[in-house]
Amino acid sequence: MRKIFLGAALAAIALPLSAQQPARPRSAPEIVKSAPATDWVSISPDDLLVMTLAPDAQGKPRQVILQLLPPPFSQGWIGNMKKLATAHWWDGGAIYRVQDNWVAQFGDPDEDTPQAKPLPAGLATVPESEYVSDIDLYVAREKVYSPAVWQKFYAKRAWQAKAKLYGGIEHIPLEELGHSSDNDGRGDGYAPETGFFEGWPIASNSEGYWPTHCYATIGVGRNNSPDTGTGAELYAVIGTPPRQLDRNIAVVGRVIEGIEHLSSLPRAPGNGMYNDKAKNTPIQTIRLASQLPQADQPRFQYLSTQSQTFRDYVQARINRRDSFYIYAAGSADICNIPVPIRRAP
Amino acid sequence: MRKIFLGAALAAIALPLSAQQPARPRSAPEIVKSAPATDWVSISPDDLLVMTLAPDAQGKPRQVILQLLPPPFSQGWIGNMKKLATAHWWDGGAIYRVQDNWVAQFGDPDEDTPQAKPLPAGLATVPESEYVSDIDLYVAREKVYSPAVWQKFYAKRAWQAKAKLYGGIEHIPLEELGHSSDNDGRGDGYAPETGFFEGWPIASNSEGYWPTHCYATIGVGRNNSPDTGTGAELYAVIGTPPRQLDRNIAVVGRVIEGIEHLSSLPRAPGNGMYNDKAKNTPIQTIRLASQLPQADQPRFQYLSTQSQTFRDYVQARINRRDSFYIYAAGSADICNIPVPIRRAP
Repeated sequence: MRKIFLGAALAAIALPLSAQQPARPRSAPEIVKSAPATDWVSISPDDLLVMTLAPDAQGKPRQVILQLLPPPFSQGWIGNMKKLATAHWWDGGAIYRVQDNWVAQFGDPDEDTPQAKPLPAGLATVPESEYVSDIDLYVAREKVYSPAVWQKFYAKRAWQAKAKLYGGIEHIPLEELGHSSDNDGRGDGYAPETGFFEGWPIASNSEGYWPTHCYATIGVGRNNSPDTGTGAELYAVIGTPPRQLDRNIAVVGRVIEGIEHLSSLPRAPGNGMYNDKAKNTPIQTIRLASQLPQADQPRFQYLSTQSQTFRDYVQARINRRDSFYIYAAGSADICNIPVPIRRAP
Repeated sequence: MRKIFLGAALAAIALPLSAQQPARPRSAPEIVKSAPATDWVSISPDDLLVMTLAPDAQGKPRQVILQLLPPPFSQGWIGNMKKLATAHWWDGGAIYRVQDNWVAQFGDPDEDTPQAKPLPAGLATVPESEYVSDIDLYVAREKVYSPAVWQKFYAKRAWQAKAKLYGGIEHIPLEELGHSSDNDGRGDGYAPETGFFEGWPIASNSEGYWPTHCYATIGVGRNNSPDTGTGAELYAVIGTPPRQLDRNIAVVGRVIEGIEHLSSLPRAPGNGMYNDKAKNTPIQTIRLASQLPQADQPRFQYLSTQSQTFRDYVQARINRRDSFYIYAAGSADICNIPVPIRRAP
């Protein structure tokens, strides 16, 4: 069982030449590299935030690009974030908390003090129910709403069949992920089902869908329930995926470039608060990319999670084929299948 | 289902006062804090490496403490590491690779070049079979070897019953971890079973046991198979647990203090190699703690993974009870249950 790839190569030799597979199946990076241009989906500049930090100690610029979640997820907080960016509210803010194997948090370092920066008017107060979307994703995509469809949503198996027809959530059966065999049990532990929707890792149960906390996920800082935060104070995950936060806090996006400018910052002990303004990393600006001059707008693409290329990529992550590996895990958790993202060529 | 802790509090009010539970169940940190002294197990200074890096840019000292795995795991490489430390081989080495969401790697920056530092004589060449231990852990603990016991090892269910009797691997049933319901299916995807052995996260199947790759895990760098590395080049995990490396590479230990000195280092692009010696972080010394003067030997303890306190801690990680949480995940993966470790009081 150990050297499974050597075994595959030997089997190929016994086949007629025309039927031979390549000696080594393509690795995940090779699969992504060979994706046709049509498999890459442009990310709208209206879904990107460009964060410019103060230059580092060597004077090198630091830019971090955040991608925002698409509907139906977290749109209340994301609407607030777009208002905050439009108002240039974050300019002059800071990264004020970096806790190892947990998060880098940013916004107003004076939050919860008398010096707190006033928030712009008109921010929404978003309820906890928005942590989970009960919008049927295939309906969301098709923009078709009818009572009959809603009934079907609650008949889960019927919905799954429909989802395939309508091209809803790109459901990777848990068996393919190696998470269950012949039952429909507990999935990966944190959710009965996981999959991808328009380029995002999503978990679900019979009640709805929610975005998962993985490395580089952006979420909304908050105080204790029922507060859900405004979107002014944000964190980026810089360690073990904290899946226990799923459904406890608003996921609004992810860092798609420049995460190293957050993950390599000095850690502070305890909960990671620097408690010394000299240690903060100043934020010069955070801008909605669509509000930048056209020439300055970053252009990114993600690999369509509905494409065959992506399915091949998932399989290559589940059973690694790089020459380094001698043993294929036969499994991958949703946070270990990062959706490929690139600068538009 | 959402505010399950509020529900628990209301239920308590209906009980007679003497039978009342605390309004809020204890959180994982509270459980650890209240552990009796007898639940803490001393870590031998012969199982600790003390790595001293060059001071940081502000002149502050940087020390990283590594704990080595106990038998029966990875002892060939660990024997080599003790020889390398005794020979002061790492002194003058460097951290020469830091790849975001992957590893910080250290050893000889001239490895694989004509300037490579010669290794001390007498290092073992360890085979790939040592990635997995087929030693029955309860037998290892009891130091009892007999043909009858070995036969029982392969009768898995019989072994599980025995393991409880003999106090072998501290098996956390996967159902308790939320990873399966009524089958003995695929476990957490990467392994049919996970648990703890003498303070370490372990995965297993019917063929044996292996240590898992979690945040701060230390492993042995290697070239392609059949090379397994000597233990001279080491990496620390600084991102998403790379469980796909399990059984593909030797796990030898973990960072138990000072991981931030590795995880906050500047990232290099691609595979993380700095390719510029000026960017390396110099290693001043790596010493086996037992070879330091008695007064300089760090004293650490881990929370016994056989204790009731630990089992309570696991349950509190599975269903978070901190006031911050409104939704309990009902599950935790093995890398999301870090074994509590502290400086000896």
